[in-house]
Amino acid sequence: MAADTASRVTITAIAREAGVSVPTVSRVVNGRSDVSPQTRERVEELLRRRGYRRRQPRPRDHASLIDLVFDDLDSPWAVEIIRGIEDVAHTSHIGTVISAIHGKAASARQWMQNVRTRATDGVILVGSGLEAPLQAELDRLDVPTVMVDTAGVPPLEVPTIGATNWAGGLAATEHLLALGHERIGFIAGPPRLRCSRARLDGYRAGLAAAELSADDELVWQGDFYPQSGFEAGNALLDHKARPSAIFASNDQMAFGLYEAIRQRGIRVPDDISVVGFDDLPEARWSSPPLTTVRQPLSEMGTLAARTVLRLARGEQIENPRIELATDLVIRNSTAQPAAA
Amino acid sequence: MAADTASRVTITAIAREAGVSVPTVSRVVNGRSDVSPQTRERVEELLRRRGYRRRQPRPRDHASLIDLVFDDLDSPWAVEIIRGIEDVAHTSHIGTVISAIHGKAASARQWMQNVRTRATDGVILVGSGLEAPLQAELDRLDVPTVMVDTAGVPPLEVPTIGATNWAGGLAATEHLLALGHERIGFIAGPPRLRCSRARLDGYRAGLAAAELSADDELVWQGDFYPQSGFEAGNALLDHKARPSAIFASNDQMAFGLYEAIRQRGIRVPDDISVVGFDDLPEARWSSPPLTTVRQPLSEMGTLAARTVLRLARGEQIENPRIELATDLVIRNSTAQPAAA
Repeated sequence: MAADTASRVTITAIAREAGVSVPTVSRVVNGRSDVSPQTRERVEELLRRRGYRRRQPRPRDHASLIDLVFDDLDSPWAVEIIRGIEDVAHTSHIGTVISAIHGKAASARQWMQNVRTRATDGVILVGSGLEAPLQAELDRLDVPTVMVDTAGVPPLEVPTIGATNWAGGLAATEHLLALGHERIGFIAGPPRLRCSRARLDGYRAGLAAAELSADDELVWQGDFYPQSGFEAGNALLDHKARPSAIFASNDQMAFGLYEAIRQRGIRVPDDISVVGFDDLPEARWSSPPLTTVRQPLSEMGTLAARTVLRLARGEQIENPRIELATDLVIRNSTAQPAAA
Repeated sequence: MAADTASRVTITAIAREAGVSVPTVSRVVNGRSDVSPQTRERVEELLRRRGYRRRQPRPRDHASLIDLVFDDLDSPWAVEIIRGIEDVAHTSHIGTVISAIHGKAASARQWMQNVRTRATDGVILVGSGLEAPLQAELDRLDVPTVMVDTAGVPPLEVPTIGATNWAGGLAATEHLLALGHERIGFIAGPPRLRCSRARLDGYRAGLAAAELSADDELVWQGDFYPQSGFEAGNALLDHKARPSAIFASNDQMAFGLYEAIRQRGIRVPDDISVVGFDDLPEARWSSPPLTTVRQPLSEMGTLAARTVLRLARGEQIENPRIELATDLVIRNSTAQPAAA
């Protein structure tokens, strides 16, 4: 990292040294009253001693643009996020620039070059596999950044927005257990994404709470695309002790799973129950309508846009880690197991 | 319209006066050889006499941005178009700004204000209900514009990109007729869009060619959203002489229709055949996989982006009206009628 950023004192460093949380330091910096006098004093002393300079408001290079960077634009999921972001930006007279970098460093560099030419007020990175190098470069350029559904763990000062993926995974599993299912298959998303790993852990926690041992043969790896749901579905349906329910950890894989089930002439939910994750608009209109864990994608976009615009105005974000609540939506793809 | 644009001599006016087509005038302006010497002479004479000035290349206000304006961002259809446009723009080091105006003049004005602040190299309007006023304003600002799936008939100089909707409607209908269907229902899209009307006319042309009289009771109005396909589907299924096949003029309405069929416990394609239009990625993964008319959405986006970037470089477009070919994709939702 360049010397000028390395020497900048961060609130993360101050928090560490003061033995308090980053939000607490933020509150002190923003002059809020909900901090104890002792803590405030200790933090203010450290801020002075370490020469902390608050990030300046940046009206001089106001670009009237924010950038929204996806890995890929090939999912109906993306349009939900875009919708939430565009809505906030539009109302704030800000244009939303959309880019896809396809997980390629060259493509990310090209985008970065474009940003340097035309300037941007802030960047929202969505589930990008390249976030660490991108983040370092954006930090160097002093461009405010927010992340949605991250892969790695970004520095504490970078706000991240996600959904309660673990709780959602747990809720879906508990729903199937409550219906009487004991052999529940799971189709996982890409392990590089934290949201995938959290959903899997929620599933395992549900089984553990019901004192069921997790059968590793019932967990198959997918990649969030329908084809992988189809293939994992076929593998699970071929299992000698076929599960009576399958939890596909996103809706797209559930649609692929539906097709694997349909091709065998068995029926959802009579012969097998299916749960998805996301609640894409299509889930309501799949045959049968899919029981799924709703994550508030457009609200996540809305919050990401509001947060990056606040950063662009030089505000500190008190709460840099936000998970919006998921919600189980019960439709027609789940029922009691056939044997029951 | 402002006086300065009213006084600008357009190639449309020259074409009208010379009694030749706009592409012919374009060819002369661009110095191409595929025009007869007599025509070239007549057109060049008129260009001189009327003081035609070719639109200048505009490097001075190069914004490194193009604008993509949707009516709404609530369809998986949108992301396909975005993908094609972003791909071309990204490669050309141009950012793609995305906006939704929700068919509201106030929202369109707000967008226009944003564009005035930050500049743009060109605009792509997608199926907008506000295209006439927007187009007039963009013309006043001398911003190159391209339209995709227009509502009205834009001025001849504005390039428009669509698909062969009429031919697609005809192909779907012919496919059902060839299977032996004679009572074929139709669910129409919003009549304000030319693509909707063309698909309906293609359906009617197919019936007429088979010497079947079109039964107006078999044509229901939808709005391209699944709910309308569900409702129109219910109406058609309630018909005393139920159709043996239904052509939903987009995939989303076909998904709604699937649900109406499923709720009655009848089956696709055994009891009723269904055809859609678009070939969204979801169509492949619906239950059963949907027979549909593919329109090349991302290619339409690609072409729109290339065209607007050419206009931004001051080039003339020889062929301002382009319809990309549709293609019938036969999957599992169509079969011979049950009685056959």
